Amino acid sequence: MTFLTRREHFSASHRLYNPMFSDEKNFEIFGKCSNPNGHGHNYYVEVTVCGEVAADTGFLINLEILKKILKISFIDKVDHKNLNSDVEFLSNINPTSENIAIACWNQIESQIQKYCKLYSVKLFETEKNFVEFRGNVK
Amino acid sequence: MTFLTRREHFSASHRLYNPMFSDEKNFEIFGKCSNPNGHGHNYYVEVTVCGEVAADTGFLINLEILKKILKISFIDKVDHKNLNSDVEFLSNINPTSENIAIACWNQIESQIQKYCKLYSVKLFETEKNFVEFRGNVK
Amino acid sequence: MTFLTRREHFSASHRLYNPMFSDEKNFEIFGKCSNPNGHGHNYYVEVTVCGEVAADTGFLINLEILKKILKISFIDKVDHKNLNSDVEFLSNINPTSENIAIACWNQIESQIQKYCKLYSVKLFETEKNFVEFRGNVK
Amino acid sequence: MTFLTRREHFSASHRLYNPMFSDEKNFEIFGKCSNPNGHGHNYYVEVTVCGEVAADTGFLINLEILKKILKISFIDKVDHKNLNSDVEFLSNINPTSENIAIACWNQIESQIQKYCKLYSVKLFETEKNFVEFRGNVK
Amino acid sequence: MTFLTRREHFSASHRLYNPMFSDEKNFEIFGKCSNPNGHGHNYYVEVTVCGEVAADTGFLINLEILKKILKISFIDKVDHKNLNSDVEFLSNINPTSENIAIACWNQIESQIQKYCKLYSVKLFETEKNFVEFRGNVK
Amino acid sequence: MTFLTRREHFSASHRLYNPMFSDEKNFEIFGKCSNPNGHGHNYYVEVTVCGEVAADTGFLINLEILKKILKISFIDKVDHKNLNSDVEFLSNINPTSENIAIACWNQIESQIQKYCKLYSVKLFETEKNFVEFRGNVK
Repeated sequence: MTFLTRREHFSASHRLYNPMFSDEKNFEIFGKCSNPNGHGHNYYVEVTVCGEVAADTGFLINLEILKKILKISFIDKVDHKNLNSDVEFLSNINPTSENIAIACWNQIESQIQKYCKLYSVKLFETEKNFVEFRGNVK
Repeated sequence: MTFLTRREHFSASHRLYNPMFSDEKNFEIFGKCSNPNGHGHNYYVEVTVCGEVAADTGFLINLEILKKILKISFIDKVDHKNLNSDVEFLSNINPTSENIAIACWNQIESQIQKYCKLYSVKLFETEKNFVEFRGNVK
Repeated sequence: MTFLTRREHFSASHRLYNPMFSDEKNFEIFGKCSNPNGHGHNYYVEVTVCGEVAADTGFLINLEILKKILKISFIDKVDHKNLNSDVEFLSNINPTSENIAIACWNQIESQIQKYCKLYSVKLFETEKNFVEFRGNVK
Repeated sequence: MTFLTRREHFSASHRLYNPMFSDEKNFEIFGKCSNPNGHGHNYYVEVTVCGEVAADTGFLINLEILKKILKISFIDKVDHKNLNSDVEFLSNINPTSENIAIACWNQIESQIQKYCKLYSVKLFETEKNFVEFRGNVK
Repeated sequence: MTFLTRREHFSASHRLYNPMFSDEKNFEIFGKCSNPNGHGHNYYVEVTVCGEVAADTGFLINLEILKKILKISFIDKVDHKNLNSDVEFLSNINPTSENIAIACWNQIESQIQKYCKLYSVKLFETEKNFVEFRGNVK
Repeated sequence: MTFLTRREHFSASHRLYNPMFSDEKNFEIFGKCSNPNGHGHNYYVEVTVCGEVAADTGFLINLEILKKILKISFIDKVDHKNLNSDVEFLSNINPTSENIAIACWNQIESQIQKYCKLYSVKLFETEKNFVEFRGNVK
């Protein structure tokens, strides 16, 4: 089994809160991440696909294809954006790292499976905090 | 001459624009950085001081003092904040990396000069873009 | 399946040796790592937990809880310490990276399982050498 | 289950192309990577082994043994080399990251299995592109 | 005085040798870097400019201008190239890090001085070896 | 003016204290760094030399010479050592980062000046704390 990973970067702002919670509860759970005017991060996303290496090209997938899918369906929609208000596929979703990683998976999976299998989406909020989503068990 | 540097981190959101410019001009100059709802970064700041090493301690400055000045006068005021609306010492200042570095210098210089000389403030907006301010020529 | 990782840092000294071995055998096996007066490292530890993302918070686990468990039960007990002599839970244990990772797992697992599942403890001795422990097969 | 990883570095040049393809097809598939005079990279390789930790040494494998196998059987043969023309075990192989990782696995596996199990070979072509090979399913 | 730095990446191959030297002397001086078929690196270049911050934009120079100059006049001419044979401005120049940094300076200086002052060109051949050129004393 | 830097690594343990101070004063000044049994770090040292680039080699200094001086006169004497007890040139010196950087300068300067000028010694105790020594004003 061979795995190939592409790492990309985007900068975005967000605010963590649940509109169903009171202000007190939002602050209790999300702390300074619930600052009303938001804050932001340099996010890194690592998308890993897996499958067989083609004998004629030596590629699992042509990296240019993977880069293009990732750029069009995810990076261009979140880079230099406010994740609470500017991103259609995150509307009504609290933009925690967990939820952003899952949303990224949902944005790209169907396109990648034309070529190989999507294995994982890893999202780094900072160097010290990161999440990984490997899809739902079916 | 000996130099000592402390590196710290903060996460913040910002929007680049000049209220005196038209929307078109703001977009022309600041591009996607002028997105109305803002975006954000994991900023790193490196503060460098210089001077003589004390014979009895082997320290240029006790790092705990430098960390405390930096935390109270700068990091705590910008971390998890919106740099356009939440930071008093940046009010009416366009929060470019250049202006943030200069503002950091102004926040900490008078306190540091009780101990040694402030040499430079380096601000990393991303791994690829950073500025350094070394004070005004007098 | 979703995974969340927290990365922390500590600085410590250690000496590798087995008191049951002769000095010659200790040096043969542990080389310069068996220097009698010890040496040290900036260790990084990455703790990964896994589970379901809660619908109301968007969190797998509140990161503040994970940070607190890790700080109190592991980091505070090893940071700026001599791993051979200063750490109760490492007494009579040769402080190799393998053994430190396993000891970290044992220190934090019972507390983490109140919230989610501990998946792995990764310990970086240097950028070039690291170990990962994923628990015992039961 | 415990895992131990060693990270090493080598610098090499390569050109991606398939001699069975036309020049046009090579350029279409491999793009600028098929530049006739080649280009190059600082490659990083991470070799991960797994197994049980020995009670007397606290080691999964003595790192010196792993370093020696990796150096003699792989690094010394690719470092400061042209991967298309200078490396016997890559002759007639298109030196994509996928194929280099698989070739590294084949070079070291039989020697490592005297001590423990080879789990994975991860090859970083750049910070943004990397592949991992975990052996063939048997 | 304010400084702004942009970091860019390129991958290239090279061979160090002086055609005026014998093969023996080339090997004695350049060692494995004189391997006839070349080797390669992921190079990073950091270009630093200095000057005054404009009051209306908060910019020393618009980063988009600096990126464009750097891309057109340097990166596009060296990325995925063989530095001995594919780069006009390096013809008849031994592509050591020192000479590449100086050549980069010469490629971009006249264009940058329309906006501000070029202060330094830093070239990283690896994480462990890098050079910096700050222009000729006049 | 051209500068060339070599980055090296060593692992060592140390304890900060002044034998002329009381235990209380040592703890007040050095905090957890004065833990009696010591602690340790992965240190990185960056040595920068400057001068003219030779026309025939394209080198400021042959990197192999710089590496050899640094290895023999500094790295081999501090790597995997206790800086308080195992290093002759640090005897009776409190091993702060400032003092280690100055000691490194003194160990290598006379040998480097046969070839070019030593410009600076930068010592990283952690990623967040580092010092630089540029020699004494004469």
